[in-house]
Amino acid sequence: MALHFTSEQRLDDGVLERRFTLGEIPGILWTPASASESAPVPLILLGLPTLGLQKMYARLAARARHAAADGFAAATIELPGSGERPRQAAFEQARADLRRAIQAGEPVSDEIIDALILPLVDQAVPEWQATLDALLPLPEIGGPVGYSGGVISIGIRLALRDPRIVAANLFAGSFVPRAMFEEARQVTIPLHVLLQWDDEGNDRQAALDLFDAFGSKEKSLHAHMGGHTGVPQSAGDAAAQFFTRHLT
Amino acid sequence: MALHFTSEQRLDDGVLERRFTLGEIPGILWTPASASESAPVPLILLGLPTLGLQKMYARLAARARHAAADGFAAATIELPGSGERPRQAAFEQARADLRRAIQAGEPVSDEIIDALILPLVDQAVPEWQATLDALLPLPEIGGPVGYSGGVISIGIRLALRDPRIVAANLFAGSFVPRAMFEEARQVTIPLHVLLQWDDEGNDRQAALDLFDAFGSKEKSLHAHMGGHTGVPQSAGDAAAQFFTRHLT
Repeated sequence: MALHFTSEQRLDDGVLERRFTLGEIPGILWTPASASESAPVPLILLGLPTLGLQKMYARLAARARHAAADGFAAATIELPGSGERPRQAAFEQARADLRRAIQAGEPVSDEIIDALILPLVDQAVPEWQATLDALLPLPEIGGPVGYSGGVISIGIRLALRDPRIVAANLFAGSFVPRAMFEEARQVTIPLHVLLQWDDEGNDRQAALDLFDAFGSKEKSLHAHMGGHTGVPQSAGDAAAQFFTRHLT
Repeated sequence: MALHFTSEQRLDDGVLERRFTLGEIPGILWTPASASESAPVPLILLGLPTLGLQKMYARLAARARHAAADGFAAATIELPGSGERPRQAAFEQARADLRRAIQAGEPVSDEIIDALILPLVDQAVPEWQATLDALLPLPEIGGPVGYSGGVISIGIRLALRDPRIVAANLFAGSFVPRAMFEEARQVTIPLHVLLQWDDEGNDRQAALDLFDAFGSKEKSLHAHMGGHTGVPQSAGDAAAQFFTRHLT
């Protein structure tokens, strides 16, 4: 897929923010002021939820600027069926089924979780890999690559499938299909896993089981109080230190 | 109880290490080179297991030097019935019962855990408080106080009872009597809790339940791989940052 930069701005801390399209997929690349052909920097892929890139922009840009301050480039792309990308009937149906189950106070069935997540993973993972194919040849990007946040099943599949990704910071805050536990068992790269202990929309026991399942010898779980969006600043700092240990 | 300094040495990083006795209790105080009457430093109490001060010296000194590098004094005292202090028949009996249960592959009963931990907490907590009474008047020590590591039930009782302690780093790696869960619910100070996920001598589910029980609004759980003594360097760094946030 062809990479086209569509806009470019220099942020006040010197970070270069470039919007791009990769085929039909919108994305953003942030590089620290120091990044150059003679001093290429590692890359962190910033995962995001299905809320859409524009809605998440402020939080993504803050994470990217934190990464840039640590000497890393950061990049994100719009998920399939989200934001400005064409709606997909199957996703919309799964989201409607999820909302209906939650509003009715019913448990969210494995069928709903599978329909919501598995096709998303199947479509998104090759797109993130295509993003690496397109960005890693840039002279100011040197690798290795980390993956951080977003839909955890996408992170699991990427960590398992793409050897360019050497460390992942995963947020155990979304539904996980049972089939992903089998993939989690095969993951071996270092993992830093965040869990919001009282996340209203998350199954804590499933998150603990998933952490236990990961095959990585080096993995750590960091649970904090507060709801889904209440991850404290100190948790972000610790995740940043994790990448500094593994990407530099 | 009277405080007597019995020896004093300056370590290679400038840290002043002073051994003391408090009544009959041996202890060690470490202060950073910078600590003075005009620049008093906060204090971290370094908890330890019942293995004894001399056996734990190297690890305690390493933790103290890390604390000193962050601008904190650190102090520890021998637990009752441990190290050079007089053996206590009831503790020895409880330890023998514990060893026998483990060797026989039996579950460790609530009775054994209570006999092992509750009298230790009852005796140790007033001794740690007496240590604060003795050390806080020193001109180079300014407070506030943090508690770190060791037997977690002692940390829970201290966090609950002594308002001079404003933050605690607890290691969920020892048996916890059911009665301590009720005290844990009443703790309100910020907590940083470490758990070794595959700690061979620890009950993981009990540790997760204990973390859930703590009443503190600000609490976080950090689980790492490796056995009881395998806490990684990065976990020590994160605990140090926790104290920097709460004691300065």
